Amino acid sequence: MDYAQFFRDKLNALKAEGRYRIFADLERCAGEFPRALRHDSDEVADVTVWCSNDYLGMGQHPVVLDAMREALNRSGAGAGGTRNISGTNHHHVLLERELADLHGKDAGLLFTSGYVSNMATLSTLGSRLPNCIVFSDAGNHASMIEGIRHSRADKQIFRHNDPEDLARRLAQEDPDRPKVVAFESVYSMDGDVAPIDEICDVAERYNALTYLDEVHAVGLYGPNGGGIADREGLMHRLDIIEGTLAKAFGCMGGYITGSSDLVDFVRSHASGFIFTTALPPHVAAGALASVRHLKHSDAERQALHERSATVKARLTAAGIPVAPSYSHIVPVLVGDPEACNEASWSLLRRHGIYVQPINYPTVPKGSERLRFTPNPHHTDADVDRLVNALTDVWQDLGLRAAA
Amino acid sequence: MDYAQFFRDKLNALKAEGRYRIFADLERCAGEFPRALRHDSDEVADVTVWCSNDYLGMGQHPVVLDAMREALNRSGAGAGGTRNISGTNHHHVLLERELADLHGKDAGLLFTSGYVSNMATLSTLGSRLPNCIVFSDAGNHASMIEGIRHSRADKQIFRHNDPEDLARRLAQEDPDRPKVVAFESVYSMDGDVAPIDEICDVAERYNALTYLDEVHAVGLYGPNGGGIADREGLMHRLDIIEGTLAKAFGCMGGYITGSSDLVDFVRSHASGFIFTTALPPHVAAGALASVRHLKHSDAERQALHERSATVKARLTAAGIPVAPSYSHIVPVLVGDPEACNEASWSLLRRHGIYVQPINYPTVPKGSERLRFTPNPHHTDADVDRLVNALTDVWQDLGLRAAA
Repeated sequence: MDYAQFFRDKLNALKAEGRYRIFADLERCAGEFPRALRHDSDEVADVTVWCSNDYLGMGQHPVVLDAMREALNRSGAGAGGTRNISGTNHHHVLLERELADLHGKDAGLLFTSGYVSNMATLSTLGSRLPNCIVFSDAGNHASMIEGIRHSRADKQIFRHNDPEDLARRLAQEDPDRPKVVAFESVYSMDGDVAPIDEICDVAERYNALTYLDEVHAVGLYGPNGGGIADREGLMHRLDIIEGTLAKAFGCMGGYITGSSDLVDFVRSHASGFIFTTALPPHVAAGALASVRHLKHSDAERQALHERSATVKARLTAAGIPVAPSYSHIVPVLVGDPEACNEASWSLLRRHGIYVQPINYPTVPKGSERLRFTPNPHHTDADVDRLVNALTDVWQDLGLRAAA
Repeated sequence: MDYAQFFRDKLNALKAEGRYRIFADLERCAGEFPRALRHDSDEVADVTVWCSNDYLGMGQHPVVLDAMREALNRSGAGAGGTRNISGTNHHHVLLERELADLHGKDAGLLFTSGYVSNMATLSTLGSRLPNCIVFSDAGNHASMIEGIRHSRADKQIFRHNDPEDLARRLAQEDPDRPKVVAFESVYSMDGDVAPIDEICDVAERYNALTYLDEVHAVGLYGPNGGGIADREGLMHRLDIIEGTLAKAFGCMGGYITGSSDLVDFVRSHASGFIFTTALPPHVAAGALASVRHLKHSDAERQALHERSATVKARLTAAGIPVAPSYSHIVPVLVGDPEACNEASWSLLRRHGIYVQPINYPTVPKGSERLRFTPNPHHTDADVDRLVNALTDVWQDLGLRAAA
């Protein structure tokens, strides 16, 4: 076995397929978001970011930064241990209470990321509930898929956002068998939204636990920013609501909320929770400030949704193939990895617009895309520049127009 | 299936076994470490922390906090995306270069935690190297075990720190089969140290990749803080050196270092790297400052090792059963979960000394312990108080003395 040759060959194969990823080396500029600096060798250039998941710009909000500075001064850089071994800080405790309240649940539990919260929780439930079977939406995020896979529980993949297919599959299983239905509210690559109510009806009929990933919705939907289930008055129907602190809340970390015993069970058994250093106290403090702010302020959400609707309408009017989206996300289909890379590169080089190409395995082959995420800080002039730039690039590369 | 009853029963079983974990609700006090505040209902009390993995107190070092404040002001709270989608910030790039240099490697790759770096890298290598078999030290950390398990590669567990057992197992396998030998340098619960040179000899003889976890050693050993392999001049013999930014470096995050192609391969394939929000830029900035400081400053390391030797000698002289340890870690064996909980509780309540009981599954049943981590900021008076307090508690609870 020639390991060096193996790695080289695999990387060359990725490059040949146009799937080799080159990361843009950015420098975020607090107070100027979505403006950023881009480092390229020794050169630095201004760019406008159109693909950040800091959906509301809370990563630069004074209330968040002030809370982080204060906690950094007070408690220092890191947590210094796992949650069990000296790593629990008072801000973790306060944040878990706040998150439970946000989702109308008894308890919350922090993880180092949304990825880890999905992986750790689903692998714990799938492996610890005896003879469990997990019903997983076909569009679920990699972190959910990996968590279910790691649990080694049986799995059924139901058709994306299809309660009838879910019901058919549930009906075929032993009624006494433990069941988990795992799905998302907003699917981040297409921007479509789950029929939460119908899925909960089906799950209830067959006595399945419901696990809802709201990472692309928390902070953004609902009167208090609790997500789509908050907007639709359905939070009480979900056994577990999972979310992130790293997107609309602008910080870092993930969490689950649910009944006290369920959350305590995960806290007590999940390897990915137990054996890892806790989030830095000041990160928890920043997230706490962000969650509290967005509980009471609707202005950021309204501005986001207005910007998103404007971008969709303007691009569509210009003949750019915006895919149907029922959320703030604006996917523009290209359908080929090389063309997607070229369009992205051309936008960056010629127009100072940064949007990353999204290729397989993040999306299925043939559905390669540019995924735009408008935010409240994109001005009308930014939108004008975006529409003009896309029109230019679409013509220049001969990409397909809207049908 | 009554889910609520199931969770309740499992939690009651943990409580009956003395394995139910209660987290101390602390407030770290930058500048006063290892002093902290402990919240209990509405009361707040001073404690001296003796179980932090902020081994050198870098979590409160001005060079780290200044770097974090500056980057926080400049770049804001979070990264705003995955590394591929707008989340790479210049501090990540600089930190990866610095870490590669620390370990004498071509490339470095950041993860959100040491747990994730082990899990993601080992699961990627184990699943992507065709027909791979992983040889795992019996004492390996949960994150390595989970990563290997998740890869579904065949696994052989070799006797802890036993190169002969490893050689015997390697000899039985097809010479052409890809092989990974995964082990740690400092084992955190016993404080023992791997025979890295001998393990590398064996691995080389059988053409196995070597994966070394140095999370409890980076920053602490070697002329530049590169870990045990740095101290012993062996870094070039390891294919992958993995470390953490959350212990001696005082921040958060994990990483691997290795050849450019190997690291690029992991970067391109590891789900736990690809599909998660990057570390906040200011956390990377703080870690960068910490790594650079400890590359050139030996004072913290020397003070740590002096303190550790002093604590071991003083406790041993007082008849407290300190387990043999060849590192800075000071394990004191109790051997029973309830007694371990009681000793910890008594130290906290009567002496203001906080050390968490370490019970199964973190250590094997029967080896329950108190694990002390002296640091440069523990004064002579702190050590006096510790020795007196342990003597008092040992007598009071009738715990076994040193043999």
